[in-house]
Amino acid sequence: MDIFSDEYFMRFAFKEAELAFAEDEVPVGAVVVIKNVVIAKAHNMTKRLQDATAHAEMLAITAANEYLGNKYLNDCTLYVTLEPCLMCAGATFWSHIGRIVYAATDEKRGFTLLNPSPLHPKTQLLSGILETECGSLLKRYFAKKR
Amino acid sequence: MDIFSDEYFMRFAFKEAELAFAEDEVPVGAVVVIKNVVIAKAHNMTKRLQDATAHAEMLAITAANEYLGNKYLNDCTLYVTLEPCLMCAGATFWSHIGRIVYAATDEKRGFTLLNPSPLHPKTQLLSGILETECGSLLKRYFAKKR
Repeated sequence: MDIFSDEYFMRFAFKEAELAFAEDEVPVGAVVVIKNVVIAKAHNMTKRLQDATAHAEMLAITAANEYLGNKYLNDCTLYVTLEPCLMCAGATFWSHIGRIVYAATDEKRGFTLLNPSPLHPKTQLLSGILETECGSLLKRYFAKKR
Repeated sequence: MDIFSDEYFMRFAFKEAELAFAEDEVPVGAVVVIKNVVIAKAHNMTKRLQDATAHAEMLAITAANEYLGNKYLNDCTLYVTLEPCLMCAGATFWSHIGRIVYAATDEKRGFTLLNPSPLHPKTQLLSGILETECGSLLKRYFAKKR
């Protein structure tokens, strides 16, 4: 069995989400992977940076762009613990990311609510990997806030 | 007559677009204004930074967030020389920006192509200010590329 499964890489994103949780940020984590190597890791930092654009995916994409010295990420996979919002889906579009794998569904702000699909036509999509763990962490966070 | 018209502030955004043009970037500029004061200026830097997320609006929103020490921009207006894309519209949503004024229409990638509207329900919208100048600069850029 190949150890480099989607679950394997989603666990890195989940660890990032746990870091966000510990910092009282909305617990979303993301990593960018190329050829089975994690080249960027990030978690939501909107509070710490007081920056509305500092979602996990945005930070991970910017970091991956920087690592590769290339604004295109065609051969990369973005693993993220929550369905990307519109802004982040837009960022994946501009980066021509090869593949997106997300865990939990975002029924309020997820990009799949939009028509037409904002993804790049070449971007592959998979969802539901580690959905329960990633979704539970988000539920715990929002339960704390109420 | 009030000198602080929408055209007055759009000229700052246009100047930013001209800087982008001079740097061989897609010529889009943006400024964020609060109470008639420009608190953030930016132009597209996707090539220079090799960062797919480095659109003028994203950089301007992040700079305005930093200037105000606040991730919300309710009392701010974003002036931008081209209709925002999905990613940038999403960023305005998360920042709860008070108002968006854009110049030229983006018939391929503009956020107004999407349903439902990605804007925050409290965000006001105006378009067409300095449309000809901002649009011409973009046309000149793309004509050069062909």
